[in-house]
Amino acid sequence: MGPEIVPTPPQRTRFVLTDTSHAGNVGAAARAIKVMGFGDLVLVRPRFADVLSREETVAMASGAADVLARARIVATLADALDGVTFACATAMTPRDFGPPTRAPRDALPALAAGSDRVAFVFGGERFGLANDDVYRCHLCLSIPTAPGYGSLNLAQAVQIVAYEWRQALGGFDVASPVAEPAAADQRAVQQLLAHWREVLVDVGYLDPASPKKLLPRLNRLLQRARPTLQEVHILRGIARAVQRALPPRRGQG
Amino acid sequence: MGPEIVPTPPQRTRFVLTDTSHAGNVGAAARAIKVMGFGDLVLVRPRFADVLSREETVAMASGAADVLARARIVATLADALDGVTFACATAMTPRDFGPPTRAPRDALPALAAGSDRVAFVFGGERFGLANDDVYRCHLCLSIPTAPGYGSLNLAQAVQIVAYEWRQALGGFDVASPVAEPAAADQRAVQQLLAHWREVLVDVGYLDPASPKKLLPRLNRLLQRARPTLQEVHILRGIARAVQRALPPRRGQG
Repeated sequence: MGPEIVPTPPQRTRFVLTDTSHAGNVGAAARAIKVMGFGDLVLVRPRFADVLSREETVAMASGAADVLARARIVATLADALDGVTFACATAMTPRDFGPPTRAPRDALPALAAGSDRVAFVFGGERFGLANDDVYRCHLCLSIPTAPGYGSLNLAQAVQIVAYEWRQALGGFDVASPVAEPAAADQRAVQQLLAHWREVLVDVGYLDPASPKKLLPRLNRLLQRARPTLQEVHILRGIARAVQRALPPRRGQG
Repeated sequence: MGPEIVPTPPQRTRFVLTDTSHAGNVGAAARAIKVMGFGDLVLVRPRFADVLSREETVAMASGAADVLARARIVATLADALDGVTFACATAMTPRDFGPPTRAPRDALPALAAGSDRVAFVFGGERFGLANDDVYRCHLCLSIPTAPGYGSLNLAQAVQIVAYEWRQALGGFDVASPVAEPAAADQRAVQQLLAHWREVLVDVGYLDPASPKKLLPRLNRLLQRARPTLQEVHILRGIARAVQRALPPRRGQG
């Protein structure tokens, strides 16, 4: 065994593509699973025996060449499921006598909470999974799509299932942004509002004898904007600058 | 206005791709949004002015030619956001002074519950979104990916966001399988077990004087399998067939 490249033990999760006809889809699928932290890819009966090294495959795999390098090609789904304890078929149309059909988001959390070694099995671009292959699976996953146009590209179906499985396993963190500055406290916001009330009177926009709903409206805007302390300082700086720029009022100087 | 092809009012949701360089990605994105029931696609500054009619675009769009036919090409993100009240950038790396960064699954349900006209904005394959474009957005969506390999293909990022947004809006039904037959009730299962207990004694597999844990084990297996009534009938039919096939026991005939 070489060093592990993916963060999840590969024996927990396997992606199986049967009867693929487009090399680009194999590469895109490799990238799709790697980006979600998986790395075990098995192909059953691909159209091209050299699919793992084709130019189109490698181009679509982008930085997932290591997944292609470790991928295996086997003759039957039974071979591909060696070591797997729970197999999920993916199919748009449920089959008579097939396993129950569930949406990934409904079914995967319970599966993730267990300790099964799970395979996700995808059919070819043209005909989907063969019935006999569906029968080998414990569950059928169906990605909910628009009525009348449910035609997901193979690599994109792989992407959604890999994403949902990763989410079910606990997910990755979103790249943490620069710490978002805290909102100013209510006292600072109310002082800001009081300051601007002065300015609005000074500039003749607010008549203290008939204030109408101007202050409540500004208050609501500020509550919604939830300014930071720095932003409060900026708005007060503007208020001061306006006041300084005004001509001296009668009775003031 | 012509007849609507997609089930969601297009004014509620728009997908905006800026600076795309690969025609295939535009086609794949059109398919990705259509499969989730959306249809409003706007391109900003695509590399090829004729991208909507290129062979690669049309091939990757598959059945989503109607989305391409209605797509628009504009010069700036501001043009693309005409009529939009809430814009979500998508970016792997948060920007200083940019909007807050959230995972789609965290952020989208609240947005779906409101009435905003929402745009999802994606950057080009090479450099992602420009800072100035991120600043025009209210929120930055980041799809959680594997540490060290966060490189999602553009069309697959579009697919995940379209999927999450559809899920947040309430989702589509999974193609309903043939109604799954109900599990048999406990009485039928216990009668089955009692019947097989007879058979096991008859064939000499169970010693009534020293039954050990055989029946509890079989009971547990049946509880786990949750057989349907039809399956119970089959298993009882087998039990009867075994009993009939046995030689008459002494003292019985």
